[in-house]
Amino acid sequence: MEKRRVGVIGATGIVGQQFIVALQGHPWFETSCLAASEKSAGKSYSEALRDEKTGALRWYCEEEPDEEVLEMKVENSSGVDASRLDVVFSAVEAEIAVNLEPKFAKQKPVVSTASTFRYEPDVPILIPGVNCDHAKIIENQRKRRGWRGFVTPIPNCTATGLVISLKPLQENFGLRQVIMTSMQSVSGAGRSPGVLSLDIVDNVIPYIPKEEEKVQSETLKILGKYQGGRIENADLKVSCTCTRVNVKDGHTEAVFASTEKNCSVEEAKDAFRNFKGDISNLDLPSAPEKMIVVREDPFRPQPRLDRDIYDGMATVVGRIRKDNVLENGIKYVLVSHNTKMGAARGAVLLAEYLAKAGYA
Amino acid sequence: MEKRRVGVIGATGIVGQQFIVALQGHPWFETSCLAASEKSAGKSYSEALRDEKTGALRWYCEEEPDEEVLEMKVENSSGVDASRLDVVFSAVEAEIAVNLEPKFAKQKPVVSTASTFRYEPDVPILIPGVNCDHAKIIENQRKRRGWRGFVTPIPNCTATGLVISLKPLQENFGLRQVIMTSMQSVSGAGRSPGVLSLDIVDNVIPYIPKEEEKVQSETLKILGKYQGGRIENADLKVSCTCTRVNVKDGHTEAVFASTEKNCSVEEAKDAFRNFKGDISNLDLPSAPEKMIVVREDPFRPQPRLDRDIYDGMATVVGRIRKDNVLENGIKYVLVSHNTKMGAARGAVLLAEYLAKAGYA
Amino acid sequence: MEKRRVGVIGATGIVGQQFIVALQGHPWFETSCLAASEKSAGKSYSEALRDEKTGALRWYCEEEPDEEVLEMKVENSSGVDASRLDVVFSAVEAEIAVNLEPKFAKQKPVVSTASTFRYEPDVPILIPGVNCDHAKIIENQRKRRGWRGFVTPIPNCTATGLVISLKPLQENFGLRQVIMTSMQSVSGAGRSPGVLSLDIVDNVIPYIPKEEEKVQSETLKILGKYQGGRIENADLKVSCTCTRVNVKDGHTEAVFASTEKNCSVEEAKDAFRNFKGDISNLDLPSAPEKMIVVREDPFRPQPRLDRDIYDGMATVVGRIRKDNVLENGIKYVLVSHNTKMGAARGAVLLAEYLAKAGYA
Amino acid sequence: MEKRRVGVIGATGIVGQQFIVALQGHPWFETSCLAASEKSAGKSYSEALRDEKTGALRWYCEEEPDEEVLEMKVENSSGVDASRLDVVFSAVEAEIAVNLEPKFAKQKPVVSTASTFRYEPDVPILIPGVNCDHAKIIENQRKRRGWRGFVTPIPNCTATGLVISLKPLQENFGLRQVIMTSMQSVSGAGRSPGVLSLDIVDNVIPYIPKEEEKVQSETLKILGKYQGGRIENADLKVSCTCTRVNVKDGHTEAVFASTEKNCSVEEAKDAFRNFKGDISNLDLPSAPEKMIVVREDPFRPQPRLDRDIYDGMATVVGRIRKDNVLENGIKYVLVSHNTKMGAARGAVLLAEYLAKAGYA
Repeated sequence: MEKRRVGVIGATGIVGQQFIVALQGHPWFETSCLAASEKSAGKSYSEALRDEKTGALRWYCEEEPDEEVLEMKVENSSGVDASRLDVVFSAVEAEIAVNLEPKFAKQKPVVSTASTFRYEPDVPILIPGVNCDHAKIIENQRKRRGWRGFVTPIPNCTATGLVISLKPLQENFGLRQVIMTSMQSVSGAGRSPGVLSLDIVDNVIPYIPKEEEKVQSETLKILGKYQGGRIENADLKVSCTCTRVNVKDGHTEAVFASTEKNCSVEEAKDAFRNFKGDISNLDLPSAPEKMIVVREDPFRPQPRLDRDIYDGMATVVGRIRKDNVLENGIKYVLVSHNTKMGAARGAVLLAEYLAKAGYA
Repeated sequence: MEKRRVGVIGATGIVGQQFIVALQGHPWFETSCLAASEKSAGKSYSEALRDEKTGALRWYCEEEPDEEVLEMKVENSSGVDASRLDVVFSAVEAEIAVNLEPKFAKQKPVVSTASTFRYEPDVPILIPGVNCDHAKIIENQRKRRGWRGFVTPIPNCTATGLVISLKPLQENFGLRQVIMTSMQSVSGAGRSPGVLSLDIVDNVIPYIPKEEEKVQSETLKILGKYQGGRIENADLKVSCTCTRVNVKDGHTEAVFASTEKNCSVEEAKDAFRNFKGDISNLDLPSAPEKMIVVREDPFRPQPRLDRDIYDGMATVVGRIRKDNVLENGIKYVLVSHNTKMGAARGAVLLAEYLAKAGYA
Repeated sequence: MEKRRVGVIGATGIVGQQFIVALQGHPWFETSCLAASEKSAGKSYSEALRDEKTGALRWYCEEEPDEEVLEMKVENSSGVDASRLDVVFSAVEAEIAVNLEPKFAKQKPVVSTASTFRYEPDVPILIPGVNCDHAKIIENQRKRRGWRGFVTPIPNCTATGLVISLKPLQENFGLRQVIMTSMQSVSGAGRSPGVLSLDIVDNVIPYIPKEEEKVQSETLKILGKYQGGRIENADLKVSCTCTRVNVKDGHTEAVFASTEKNCSVEEAKDAFRNFKGDISNLDLPSAPEKMIVVREDPFRPQPRLDRDIYDGMATVVGRIRKDNVLENGIKYVLVSHNTKMGAARGAVLLAEYLAKAGYA
Repeated sequence: MEKRRVGVIGATGIVGQQFIVALQGHPWFETSCLAASEKSAGKSYSEALRDEKTGALRWYCEEEPDEEVLEMKVENSSGVDASRLDVVFSAVEAEIAVNLEPKFAKQKPVVSTASTFRYEPDVPILIPGVNCDHAKIIENQRKRRGWRGFVTPIPNCTATGLVISLKPLQENFGLRQVIMTSMQSVSGAGRSPGVLSLDIVDNVIPYIPKEEEKVQSETLKILGKYQGGRIENADLKVSCTCTRVNVKDGHTEAVFASTEKNCSVEEAKDAFRNFKGDISNLDLPSAPEKMIVVREDPFRPQPRLDRDIYDGMATVVGRIRKDNVLENGIKYVLVSHNTKMGAARGAVLLAEYLAKAGYA
């Protein structure tokens, strides 16, 4: 099979860099276009990554970029001709995505980490393993907008792990209420301006603008039902408090949930452990061996020890206990890698699904 | 007025050191006895603080100890004669307190940071400002046990801030349910063995043994009612998840509460702001100017910026919002200084109350 | 005495904020002008501090700003009329200072934290206590440039502690060689762009652009001699490596020095302890009780424990040992508060000296 | 080839755990004995790792232990019969090693991370790649002590990276003087008592007991010459200051060196890059592809980004500049993984060399 040609828009940013890494050596995809703002256009990728003042290579992934990627020429995002690509990965900020993504979507599938289109009724927020059937709405999107391509955003990185852990509870016991407090890593904030060390050293920051609203509404949509040509929000209440802690990667979330049918701790563990997700038979290259890993050690999951399991694509759950406040209450802690499953690698996994399912 | 003579038992430990600092220059109390384990007995306090291997002074407070305290001779805890003291401060571990505290309580008031006696029916867990009337049960304790003195423990440091913030909600609107996730500082774990940097750097630890049970049951007891010679637990449900984060001092807690009567965000803020507590007219030297400080900046409270307000004796509350999951739900974030109001200084404040009220 | 009216240029930045705090309640100075870039001009100081996106107050000092300062109107730096001020404090970036400071200096004394004019032959780099006599060159500066006022920059914050500790060695034993490795705090990098938590968590950054060159050349100049109307660099070799570590405030420096006359460890300690500096009789309000504090505990100085001694105005020295590599080698570790003595408070101390000595 | 049977003494400690990981799947060695103190003896390895109080698995490596290792029975170190093993890895504290290692060495080769025997004249401190020829003194050791086996300790983890980086300078230009300041990670301190988060958060600790003496004397010995049946220290002066910073793994060292023959920055880089070491043709399984990696980016090496190169077995060098204080001065910064090349994996590499060379 010939590899699909993919482009990364916003390639110099921190999420863009994660796309580069997620695509290196990919069996199905070949990075054939890097694009960024006008400032970077015309430079080689390595030049574009250099800090002007200091000359340092501003590279934020643990994995090194390949030499040939460093030598690719960066294009101006607004000038990219999507017709020569098979898939466009968009890693730009929401304000940029609003104009740029529709331009590409006229011609080709756009898989995006931006929040811009997530809340449109004809746009699915897809997590492979959780709600692949929502992809059906892509046809409506195409028709309604007259696009040959489409836009499929991935969720906010904090919603990702939460929704994955809630899905088996919903399937097995029904879900009514979710209360969640997150302890999010600093890499989620990106690089510009990012979280200053000055702010977070010896500290917790109890607020992340717009984060709670995103998590709340995305959870309802992703756990909702596709029927009659539309996605109906799940009949569920979600409330959360999102905080930032001094951790580099990996979001930790303390979840309290109320299910319709009572479930014991063991039943909940079984539901987590047995959760296969709706991509288990598709052999997608980036899919984790298990969607959810259950820890028995009460001191786990910990972000530093658990974030990288299955290449950062698993949701790791532990401390599963009954909660006595909510009706049929169950509580647990999860760790999810915000810049892997929660960002570029998650988007690549989605593109793999879309390709396999014939959308892209 | 002559100063009361006080003793600090467990004086070389981290909580003991905090007692030393809390008592330096105290207008009512004079430290006239330092006691620790046999290993330290007979040494000067400064000698007892030295690491045997390295010779370093193992001193853990920001404030320096006075010269004269450093020169005091440390006694063996088990040999201390309480009759020459007016108040005994106990900073020992729970396993030690079980034998030691009753010995002192036979003669004198013991104010303790240990959990040992907290759950006995004739022992109040006192927070001045919140439940001073529970002190009435001291008489029962004395009679029942045949002691001239008594034991009054302060709560677990994570319960302290939670209960202080819940009290005005309970008083004004009635309280039904509380869900709380804590992000606790490393100083709460003490020094032996304490939290290793190895464990907490770039990490969150999602479990603190026994902490959740303590917070849950102590909250019910402190918010309960003294009547008919006993303390009745509050009719309330509490569930929490306690985690450790990379912060030196100050516990952060994300609280979701359900009240009986609905309250708006502004009403909740007013309740917090107007909370005077039951010690507001007593002129206790360690009492904060305000029990609760309300922050309007959505990025506050932060432990590093808010823990030291009013010498670490205030509970700082912010991010007050409605919660849509719980009935009449309200949610907020608080910061409380775990080694000040939550430990030695809180115990000194309690001793001040007991002195003023004629118990000690 | 009527208070001198002072202005703070660059008042919204992190160093500017430190000036606000350093000047609150000052017995000699009154903040009567706050200026910043055009973007902030016309707003109240509190409005100007707010993050546009999030509405948060971007305030970076532990001390809170006074209400009346928060309500002052911010002026456009380029439009400030210095004639109504007695002293101008400049906290702007070097690129801005190059045009702005001369404008003010035409009329009034400018005390600056910017590096722009430090290397001009007619500009002294002054540390009160170390080289007050260099202030004499101010007359040359005025004449040569035709200014009524003048510019006196303080040194780079890493040079400050180093030079203060070297001065008594130079005075007592003569100095030949200095090798220094710094472990600098993140607050030294300011706020824009500052050090990202992403970069420094679980990390050391071994390079700070231009820092080593600054420290090396400023040390030579400050320890040099004023004679014949010019400042002659000290006859000394200095080499350093400057790194950034995960500490909020306080630079730690490991120094290896070679003196002309051999000195024992005890003689070096005595030299540090007895160092009074050339401002000891001037009763300057911001002067520390001691310029240098010597620690005997081998585990000190530590930035978190030692940076705030004497309000962050002392240099704390410890681990004084002989070095066997350099001739007459002596080695030690120092801690100096980079945003207090090393920045705004140091500049205020300098203004106090200039006022007392009749320059301002 | 049949695998050699190896035993790990002190297997439950942090270095012991690193041995377990370093030996998992090793092509030449098979872990056939785990030993620890009496307290652990008789338990399975996983039981022995559990915290008594909390039940948590105290496992400190990122890599998980194999199931079969977790089920191995732990023996009492003092009762181990070395005759059934081919190599003994000793990970015990120096005070324990003094009695234990000779017992094993009577029969078999002991490769140790303890410092106990490092300074004995008939004991080599070996770094494969640097001073394999020092292994010749093993014969003297055997004869003199009447042992069939022998003891070969690896160096202190801070000396390891320093010596590896100095070796090519010594070979190419001759070495005279070395001044070094280390910024060491917290994992170097082990687990008992280890570095408390309480101590290191927002801090630098400027002292590590005995560390500087070890680094200084070991550097001289390892860079020395084997001749006439003894190891002569290198004719070199070394002085250092060792500090602890808030980094989990990886020691950073700022080095200033004086060479006999002047070398330019490019010549020094070439010397580092071309350094093959004396094991380059031996195909040892744990040997890094390159002993030294040179970074051109001035912001590198950084411990978090560079410690894991070649599985933590390389020394990463950057910021190579001329130094103007020392004669023919050259300065640079290095990062070396203290718990990989600097501890267990380095010891395994040494055992590989000893096996290949016929000693073990």
